[in-house]
Amino acid sequence: MYKIGIVGYGNLGRACEKIAAASEDMQLVGIFTRRDPDTLSSPFGTPFFRQSDLAKYEGEIDVLALCTGSANDLVDLGKTAAVHFNTVDSFDTHAKMRGYVTDMEKITSENGHLSFIGIGWDPGLFSLMRALFGGVLPGGSTQTFWGKGVSQGHSEAVRKLPGVVKGVQYTIPKEEALAAARRGEGASLTTRDKHLRECFVVAAEGADKAEIERRIVTMPNYFDEYDTVVHFITEEEFDRDHTGMPHGGFVLRSGEVNGMKERVEFSLALDSNPDFTASVLMAYARVNCKLFRKGVRGAKTILDIPVIELTDEDRVDFIAHTL
Amino acid sequence: MYKIGIVGYGNLGRACEKIAAASEDMQLVGIFTRRDPDTLSSPFGTPFFRQSDLAKYEGEIDVLALCTGSANDLVDLGKTAAVHFNTVDSFDTHAKMRGYVTDMEKITSENGHLSFIGIGWDPGLFSLMRALFGGVLPGGSTQTFWGKGVSQGHSEAVRKLPGVVKGVQYTIPKEEALAAARRGEGASLTTRDKHLRECFVVAAEGADKAEIERRIVTMPNYFDEYDTVVHFITEEEFDRDHTGMPHGGFVLRSGEVNGMKERVEFSLALDSNPDFTASVLMAYARVNCKLFRKGVRGAKTILDIPVIELTDEDRVDFIAHTL
Repeated sequence: MYKIGIVGYGNLGRACEKIAAASEDMQLVGIFTRRDPDTLSSPFGTPFFRQSDLAKYEGEIDVLALCTGSANDLVDLGKTAAVHFNTVDSFDTHAKMRGYVTDMEKITSENGHLSFIGIGWDPGLFSLMRALFGGVLPGGSTQTFWGKGVSQGHSEAVRKLPGVVKGVQYTIPKEEALAAARRGEGASLTTRDKHLRECFVVAAEGADKAEIERRIVTMPNYFDEYDTVVHFITEEEFDRDHTGMPHGGFVLRSGEVNGMKERVEFSLALDSNPDFTASVLMAYARVNCKLFRKGVRGAKTILDIPVIELTDEDRVDFIAHTL
Repeated sequence: MYKIGIVGYGNLGRACEKIAAASEDMQLVGIFTRRDPDTLSSPFGTPFFRQSDLAKYEGEIDVLALCTGSANDLVDLGKTAAVHFNTVDSFDTHAKMRGYVTDMEKITSENGHLSFIGIGWDPGLFSLMRALFGGVLPGGSTQTFWGKGVSQGHSEAVRKLPGVVKGVQYTIPKEEALAAARRGEGASLTTRDKHLRECFVVAAEGADKAEIERRIVTMPNYFDEYDTVVHFITEEEFDRDHTGMPHGGFVLRSGEVNGMKERVEFSLALDSNPDFTASVLMAYARVNCKLFRKGVRGAKTILDIPVIELTDEDRVDFIAHTL
C-alpha cells in the first residue's frame, strides 16, 4: 500500500482524491488545506488537516501530491514539503522551471527525498514528446498547439467586465496553422498565429452587448493580438454546454531524414483537464514510491523516468506483450 | 567521436550509413556484409568487411547497428554480436521478443556489453506510447493502426502471381475503425477490422486482369480475410508514384478518469520508413555509447531508457527549455 497525502482541495486535489480512493494500492492519509478543516467534508470520508501542520505527518506519508492552485504557492510549498516528504507536482510555470528544479534538487538531496516535478500533460506528456521528437528526428521543427480547451485566466478576464454574468474562453488551434506545421512550414508560427480565442458570454439584462464584445476583443495582452470570436448565449445554454473543463492539444514535429519528409505527432482530447492531469500525477505518485524504495533520490522530471516504471508487471512479461 | 559499425547493407543499413556520414560526432568504421565486399561500393567511401570477420573488430567499434533484413538472421546475429560488441537493433518479431530479450540479457551481462533491442517505430516509439498511455490512463483500451504504408511481404506475394510485372500493396487504416477507436469503441476491433489492403499492379501485356484480381483478393492468409482493392496501372505510373517506402500509423488510447472521457494519440506520417527507422536507431546508438561509458550494461528496450538521454545538452538547461 502506498500512503498518499494531498495538499490543496481544488479541482486537481479533488480529482486526485477520487483516483486514490478508487485505487486498491493507495491509502489516502489525508488532505492538507489552508481552509479551516472543520468546514470541509469529503464524499470519501478523507480526513482534512491544516496545511500548517504538514511537518507533523513526516514519516506517515509515502508521497505527497501538491495540488495547490497558484504557481507562486506551489514553489514555496514544494520547497517546504520536500524537506519532510517525497512529492509529486504539476508545476507549470515554464519560466520558473530552472530555478524550481535547481532548488528542489538541492533540498531533496540534503533531506534524502525524491520529488517529481512538472508531472501532468504540459509540462508532462507534452514535454516528453518534445524531448523524444527532437531526439529521434533532429532535423526538424517542433510545434505545440493548445486546445480546444478552457483558459482559466482568460475566462476570468471576461467575467470581470461590467455587464457580464457568466463567461468562458476557449483556446482553439487554428486549422490552417496546424496544417502548415504538419507540412513542415510551422517554424515561424507564433503562439498567436496558432490559436483562436472563442468566448461564450451571458450578458446582464439590458447590457450593451456590442460594448462588451468591443471590450473583450480589444483587451490588451489577453485578446487584442489574437483572432477573437464572441458569442452571446442564454444562461441556460451556458449552464448546459459550458461548465466542463475540456482541454487538449498537439505536439508535432516535421522534419527530414536523408532528404525524406517525416512527421511525428501527439495529441490529447480531454473531457476533463483536471481529471486527466490527476491521472498522470497519481500514476507517477506510484512510480515515486517504487523508485524511492529502490533508493532513488533527488528532483526528477518526466524526462528522467523510464516509462517502464509505470508498470508493476514483471519486466520481461511487460516487454513481451508491449514492445 | 562515436565509432559506429553497421551490419547489413539493405535499405536500413544504407539509411544508417547516410546518417552516420552526416553526423559530426560519428565515425563510420565499416559495413559488414554477407556479400563479397569487393563487389560493393559506398557513395561515402565506407569500407566493407566480411560479416564472418566481425569478431576481429572487437575493441574498434563503440556500437554496432544490426541492419540485416530477416528476423531469423537478426536473432542469431544479435546473439553473436553481443559477445563482442555493444549493439542496437530494430528487431521486430513481436512473437519472439521474450526469448530474444532473455537471451540478450544473459549474453550482454556475461560479456559486459550493452544492447538496445527493438529500436525503431514498431517496436520502438509505438511501444513507448503503448506503455506510457496504459500507465497514465489505466482505465481504457489501446489500439494500434498501421499505415498508410507499404507492406513488403504482401507486395512480394502480389508480385509472384503470374501475369504481374510490378506490384505494391499498401496497408491503410480504415477511417471508420479509427473513428470508433477514438470514441472508445475500439476494444473489440481486430487487425483485419482496422485495415484495408490496396494493391497497385502492372499487368503483363495480354494478361487476364480479372483473374489476377481474383487471385489477389482470394489469396489465403494474405488477402482473403481483408477488404482488398486492386488497381491496374501502367508501368510509367508505377515507376512515378509507387517506388517509395512510405509508412505511418497510429497508437491511440481512449479511456475514462473519474467518469470523464479522455483520449491520447500518437501518429507517424513517414515518406520513408527505412530512413525514419534509421534516424531512431542512430539516435539510440548515440545513447548506447553514452550509457555504456556511464557503466550501464545488459539488454535494454526503449522502455528502459529515460528520454532525457537523447540530448547532449546540460540536463537543467534542457529541462528549462523543454519541460
